[in-house]
Amino acid sequence: MEGTSHAYGGHNGSEILPPRQGMVVGAPRPAEVSPVGMVHKVMAQPAQSTASKMKGKVKETFFPDDPFRSFKGQPLRKKWLMAAKYLLPSVEWVPGYSLSLFRSDLIAGFTIASVAIPQGISYAKLADLPPIIGLYSSFVPPLVYAVLGSSHDLAVGPTSITSLIMGSMLQKAVLVSPTAEPALFVQLAFTSTLFAGLLQASLGILRLGFIIDFLSKATLLGFMAGAAIIVSLQQLKELLGIIHFTDKMDLVDVMASVFQHTDEWSWQTILMGACFLVLLLSARHVSMRWPKFFWISACAPLVSIIMSTVLVFIFKAENHGISVIGHIKCGLNHLSWDKLLFDPKYLGLAMKTGLVTGIISLTEGVAVGRTFASIKDYQVDGNKEMMAIGLMNIVGSCTSCYVTTGGFSRSAVNHNAGCKTAMSNVIMALTVMVTLLFLMPLFVYTPNVVLGAIITVAVVGLIDVPAAYHIWKMDKMDFLVCLCAFAGVIFISVEEGLAIAVGISIFRVLMQITRPRMIIQGNIKGTDIYRNIHQYEEAQRVPGFLILTVEAPINFANTNYLNERTKRWIEDESFSRNKSELRFVIFDLSAVPAIDTSGIAFLVDLKKPTEKLGLELVLVNPTGEVMEKIQRANDPHNHFRPDCLYLTIGEAIASLSGEANMATP
Amino acid sequence: MEGTSHAYGGHNGSEILPPRQGMVVGAPRPAEVSPVGMVHKVMAQPAQSTASKMKGKVKETFFPDDPFRSFKGQPLRKKWLMAAKYLLPSVEWVPGYSLSLFRSDLIAGFTIASVAIPQGISYAKLADLPPIIGLYSSFVPPLVYAVLGSSHDLAVGPTSITSLIMGSMLQKAVLVSPTAEPALFVQLAFTSTLFAGLLQASLGILRLGFIIDFLSKATLLGFMAGAAIIVSLQQLKELLGIIHFTDKMDLVDVMASVFQHTDEWSWQTILMGACFLVLLLSARHVSMRWPKFFWISACAPLVSIIMSTVLVFIFKAENHGISVIGHIKCGLNHLSWDKLLFDPKYLGLAMKTGLVTGIISLTEGVAVGRTFASIKDYQVDGNKEMMAIGLMNIVGSCTSCYVTTGGFSRSAVNHNAGCKTAMSNVIMALTVMVTLLFLMPLFVYTPNVVLGAIITVAVVGLIDVPAAYHIWKMDKMDFLVCLCAFAGVIFISVEEGLAIAVGISIFRVLMQITRPRMIIQGNIKGTDIYRNIHQYEEAQRVPGFLILTVEAPINFANTNYLNERTKRWIEDESFSRNKSELRFVIFDLSAVPAIDTSGIAFLVDLKKPTEKLGLELVLVNPTGEVMEKIQRANDPHNHFRPDCLYLTIGEAIASLSGEANMATP
Repeated sequence: MEGTSHAYGGHNGSEILPPRQGMVVGAPRPAEVSPVGMVHKVMAQPAQSTASKMKGKVKETFFPDDPFRSFKGQPLRKKWLMAAKYLLPSVEWVPGYSLSLFRSDLIAGFTIASVAIPQGISYAKLADLPPIIGLYSSFVPPLVYAVLGSSHDLAVGPTSITSLIMGSMLQKAVLVSPTAEPALFVQLAFTSTLFAGLLQASLGILRLGFIIDFLSKATLLGFMAGAAIIVSLQQLKELLGIIHFTDKMDLVDVMASVFQHTDEWSWQTILMGACFLVLLLSARHVSMRWPKFFWISACAPLVSIIMSTVLVFIFKAENHGISVIGHIKCGLNHLSWDKLLFDPKYLGLAMKTGLVTGIISLTEGVAVGRTFASIKDYQVDGNKEMMAIGLMNIVGSCTSCYVTTGGFSRSAVNHNAGCKTAMSNVIMALTVMVTLLFLMPLFVYTPNVVLGAIITVAVVGLIDVPAAYHIWKMDKMDFLVCLCAFAGVIFISVEEGLAIAVGISIFRVLMQITRPRMIIQGNIKGTDIYRNIHQYEEAQRVPGFLILTVEAPINFANTNYLNERTKRWIEDESFSRNKSELRFVIFDLSAVPAIDTSGIAFLVDLKKPTEKLGLELVLVNPTGEVMEKIQRANDPHNHFRPDCLYLTIGEAIASLSGEANMATP
Repeated sequence: MEGTSHAYGGHNGSEILPPRQGMVVGAPRPAEVSPVGMVHKVMAQPAQSTASKMKGKVKETFFPDDPFRSFKGQPLRKKWLMAAKYLLPSVEWVPGYSLSLFRSDLIAGFTIASVAIPQGISYAKLADLPPIIGLYSSFVPPLVYAVLGSSHDLAVGPTSITSLIMGSMLQKAVLVSPTAEPALFVQLAFTSTLFAGLLQASLGILRLGFIIDFLSKATLLGFMAGAAIIVSLQQLKELLGIIHFTDKMDLVDVMASVFQHTDEWSWQTILMGACFLVLLLSARHVSMRWPKFFWISACAPLVSIIMSTVLVFIFKAENHGISVIGHIKCGLNHLSWDKLLFDPKYLGLAMKTGLVTGIISLTEGVAVGRTFASIKDYQVDGNKEMMAIGLMNIVGSCTSCYVTTGGFSRSAVNHNAGCKTAMSNVIMALTVMVTLLFLMPLFVYTPNVVLGAIITVAVVGLIDVPAAYHIWKMDKMDFLVCLCAFAGVIFISVEEGLAIAVGISIFRVLMQITRPRMIIQGNIKGTDIYRNIHQYEEAQRVPGFLILTVEAPINFANTNYLNERTKRWIEDESFSRNKSELRFVIFDLSAVPAIDTSGIAFLVDLKKPTEKLGLELVLVNPTGEVMEKIQRANDPHNHFRPDCLYLTIGEAIASLSGEANMATP
């Protein structure tokens, strides 16, 4: 057959390219034409042993960024230095650290400390933990991160979402109530933090960072918005001054609880809450409108705390129905490794909570790190960040801290305040340390309602309606995922909402494989280009040929579908028209990246119905891996002779129509 | 820019095709050339409303076979008739049924009855159910299937795998032991059958048949082999005459049980078992060697039962340590809908068992139906088959039957015996009915050891070593899936082995998406063809250009990877060579069937690093859906101007290099 096509004259369309003016060096030069009538042979990739193929795949899977490529060919001494730099990114910036850098970091550090202190106290309350644990968590973890982390902008501490999840998950296990057994609850929080840290560090070490990729932006958007609503509704407890409030987290229970206890509403609390809400929201509005006044919203929480504390102190408002934090003992973090609880009764709960909070906080930390790295144009290594965040939480769990990560809001403040290196985290930690040592008595009169207002304003910022609208406009299925995450969190529970959204995302990917797009290609008049006839009006069917393209790997999940679909198309095509006209079916494999044994069986089976209808089936442009398997399937049976494999659709059509003509002169 | 490229002279390579001899009508005619220098515009698919797109997607997902297409444009009367034929496939063959067809079906019916009776008794024992339930299950379900089923070759009854799974799953729930509470065990079996039937029918009605596609051939191969080994080892109880045997199903427990009770081994039983094993295996060997003697292996089980029963009767062997079936009451199936058990205590167990047995039996039934339909060249509608099998099990659960399906071995016998229609199932059912009514006393002396031998020989046939070797040769990952299913079934449990194998298959598909293949394309000298430079030696890089192709949908699961990978390639490319040389990055989207919002964000982000390095990024040949989203992303921002979108790589290179030359004259 190759002979026939040679005789006919090829269809490459290029051997006769005219000489061109104005071509950059090396663009295909018309001088080097191929022999007239050449039909190109389809080739497999150069043979590789299974072991070397496996090695390649493992490398692509786990080391797509090839972190050690710069190590190659370096002297041993330099290799050691580079390894140290790799493991401790701080080694990179410490030697060149200057006074001017320190000045920037000092300002940024004080600014984020003013955010971290009120947030620490508030978020700890959100997780139903004693407020001081929130401050502890803003002291040790930032120091660890400053040594290990590779981001210059990440500001470390507890975040609203992880606090919420930790509180709700630990509570939901009915056996532990923060009010009934506060010591046990704290122990469980430390244990969960340990598991979260272990998970994060091992994901980093095992280079399984891609697992967090399965939380798509749409999932996170819906999840965040749902969590924000749940959190702000929960704050109604503080904002209305309700004493008996539900422990549950879903919309229905929370709203029921709000209106069951209208008798507990306190007008003094409501008034104070409303005033500070307005204050905080205005500050936020100003900062969003004029970005250079970012410090107004950054300082607003601390200012609110100071103002409200002073107000309560002056008016003795704690005697008029406004609840205050009360006495907190001064002092730094206690060691807490002896409080870790490995009782089998609670182990499952702690591991599950660690898993969910670990994944969520990792996702937030890595995403925030990547965002600011891309703005300032430096590299953040995802797997290294995971190790840093993981180690920070492992150390944290032994020093009375709960789950921390690089939160978006405080990192944004850090970035805006002009931080240069991770030193700003150190400054923040030192400021928190001073607070822990000397300033705790000042919080005695801080009213809880202000903390509620701070949390509410912080989380309302997580509801991103324009982004949701953008997703709706771009992709309806993505929007569905977003909506499911949102509704799941609000109506069922935080972790189930997340699981549903991830499930739908994965199901959607699987459906793309199970029901792959198949298109019919046509020739664009007067060219050698073949394109989808439904996309390009100029693309017209080539009479006598049916050109089919599959756009997915062919595997067990779709061979039955492809089988039915292809048969139907071939039958429709050959019966609907003049029957004698259809002669050849061209199956274009250009967009099939992989094939498995079921897929090969499908290709072999496809020959039967086509032959029954008197048609000839040819394959076009199998990619390397597919070609390799076709060859292996050929090995004893010779299912696909070389003359039914072509490199391009054009060559196949030219060769086949030439042949057909020869046969019927 | 379009203007420039016009001036330059296009690269289509076809406007100058030479006149050809020997071209079939309608192959692209060189006469109709496009204007010289045309650069083709990339187009989106014609605009469609979201609703009509959804409709199209739903249709492709649930009605890929378009079952109602022949209804279109028919008169109402004919439509009714066609609907009846659709719902009751038997309507199609009954009117034209002839005596000669009946003769063929009669022979086939008797042949499969001779298989069905011993199999029914044996498989019921395998499921730890009373033997008569196996015979009941070969009476009612075949009658139902004869009316509803669309396959002509499927012979219906219990199968070894589903019997094994049902027995093991119901037993594993420690609370139910077949020996302690036989009545409860039977009730649970009926209830599980009901759930299996409901699941099967609803999968068919909801057209979710693709769910069984996730059990790939590799999974089933490993699973079957593992189950066969477990089943045959379990038969050591009967073959060695052990009385106290474990209820567990994994290799270790079974083997321990065999050697713990060596004192119970009975030489009479072992001798008898060995003789009949040899007899049955020889019959099988003869039939496989000379296919026309298929009836030898088909009749062997019945002959063995008759012979062994006579032997026991003559030698009074039941008094010498050979256990026999014992007395079974004559009579047809009792109604059992009042025995269905919806006690919440057992509901979960029954549903889970129904789910697993339902999916497995459905997979077997549909696969067997498709196999024989493809041999005899008629169509079997998967979803319709599911409804038929489902209804058959629902009816079965109310008439003292347990899960049935079209088993491979008896369907093969049916096919070989020359069956023409589903009438052979009716003949089999009537033969079984006669047995139930009158012949049951004959089984009193049937020894259990013969049943063990029959089961062993039947399941050994499920171990397909050549197929496993074929998979190993074709695809190492598929083989791993097969191996995991096998090992999981043998060492853990039947349902967990299955779950592990399905999990790995799906994980593999997800990994193909998460780590998509990216290739660098090069120009095949002297042509306009661009191919993978690692696959084609002739393909050479075009200096000044980096041509990248992604072969997967771009979505949340892979954008991070693609981002890192692409950046690294671009950096490597622009630093490793003469820096000034690389000017353009061409991102070929031909093999990207779909994109989501994260994917669009990735494409937009990709412009940044390229621009930083002074490179220009262009996109080539986005498919319909991708183009649509690019347009939507363009809507307010104009990320991708039309002049960075090209239809082919060739056109992009020609146009860009022309432009570059113009800029630096």
